[in-house]
Amino acid sequence: MFITFEGPDGSGKSTVIKAVYERLINDGYSVILTREPGGTPIAEKIRDVILDNSNTALDARTEALLYAASRRQHLVEKIWPAIKEGKIVLCDRFLDSSLAYQGEGRKLGIENILNVNLFATENTYPDLTLFFNISPEEGLKRVSKDKKRVADRLDNENANFHQEVYNGFLKVNSMYKDRIQVIDATKSLNEVIENAYKIIKSKLEN
Amino acid sequence: MFITFEGPDGSGKSTVIKAVYERLINDGYSVILTREPGGTPIAEKIRDVILDNSNTALDARTEALLYAASRRQHLVEKIWPAIKEGKIVLCDRFLDSSLAYQGEGRKLGIENILNVNLFATENTYPDLTLFFNISPEEGLKRVSKDKKRVADRLDNENANFHQEVYNGFLKVNSMYKDRIQVIDATKSLNEVIENAYKIIKSKLEN
Repeated sequence: MFITFEGPDGSGKSTVIKAVYERLINDGYSVILTREPGGTPIAEKIRDVILDNSNTALDARTEALLYAASRRQHLVEKIWPAIKEGKIVLCDRFLDSSLAYQGEGRKLGIENILNVNLFATENTYPDLTLFFNISPEEGLKRVSKDKKRVADRLDNENANFHQEVYNGFLKVNSMYKDRIQVIDATKSLNEVIENAYKIIKSKLEN
Repeated sequence: MFITFEGPDGSGKSTVIKAVYERLINDGYSVILTREPGGTPIAEKIRDVILDNSNTALDARTEALLYAASRRQHLVEKIWPAIKEGKIVLCDRFLDSSLAYQGEGRKLGIENILNVNLFATENTYPDLTLFFNISPEEGLKRVSKDKKRVADRLDNENANFHQEVYNGFLKVNSMYKDRIQVIDATKSLNEVIENAYKIIKSKLEN
């Protein structure tokens, strides 16, 4: 069983995924918690190229291809073997983040990014995806709640980018209504964890 | 004007491309000679991941995505700017090598590799491609002519792989008859250089 957690920055999904992981382990399930590049040496090296700040000339399509390459290696070396062993795989971000960030945020087209990723994953989709829904303004407010700064041109550009990414997520959600369950991430952390846990338990028991 | 040189290992194309480059420079053309990753720092880093021999677990699709990423960056940083400046770009291997090596040699499918690469290149094809035609047996004989070794299981596997790559090139040649000119690479080096030079000159003058 392959379950992914998606959502904008500040949606709290990385906190929730850890809490859900602990509860599933306590329930006696065999579970792994992972995120790209997943600790696989090749995927780590690819990630280094993406995140190297000296790489100022990194083109958006190059970036999209590198994310797909890293995802492929993570699948082959970690996710598929775990699924084969009957484990539940919880993964923090996967395909949908690329569709939203590269497809819509970077304006490369959701369909284009989907095609590259379906090559990478051999048409592997998660069995279930939880989308932690929060507006990009609210999410960014949470992320930067300790920083008091005046909005400048760059902040505005970032706000536009994050709005486009959010619009991308909404498009992706409507493309995959059966796979993606939307969770209201503005509720209290305990409520969000409880909702995520319940949806997963219901999927595991059916 | 964007011109690529393709062919199996041992076809002599890397020797020929240098000789043709010199002759075009002597004729007064503005020409650059390049090959992937083209000296661009990001493409070099990507190439390092592909060629790192400790990466024994490198999956074939990961490899194909990394080649496409490196190609993209080489195009953006080096080939497109040179073409924009009106230069002739001579490139040792490009799209067709991926179609033959990954598509047919690695059995990933020519159509799949083409789709990933058309995303990477935004549908950029060379204006002209010279294919240096030599059978894989003949090419491998030339490559290893100084080594006397008994064929073992691995050599046989390699021979099969190189035969499949060659079959891939033949398929690609028939897909792009207008773009790809086939040159008999079994002739003397001087004849091969003369033929390559003549085809390019004729393209430049028309």
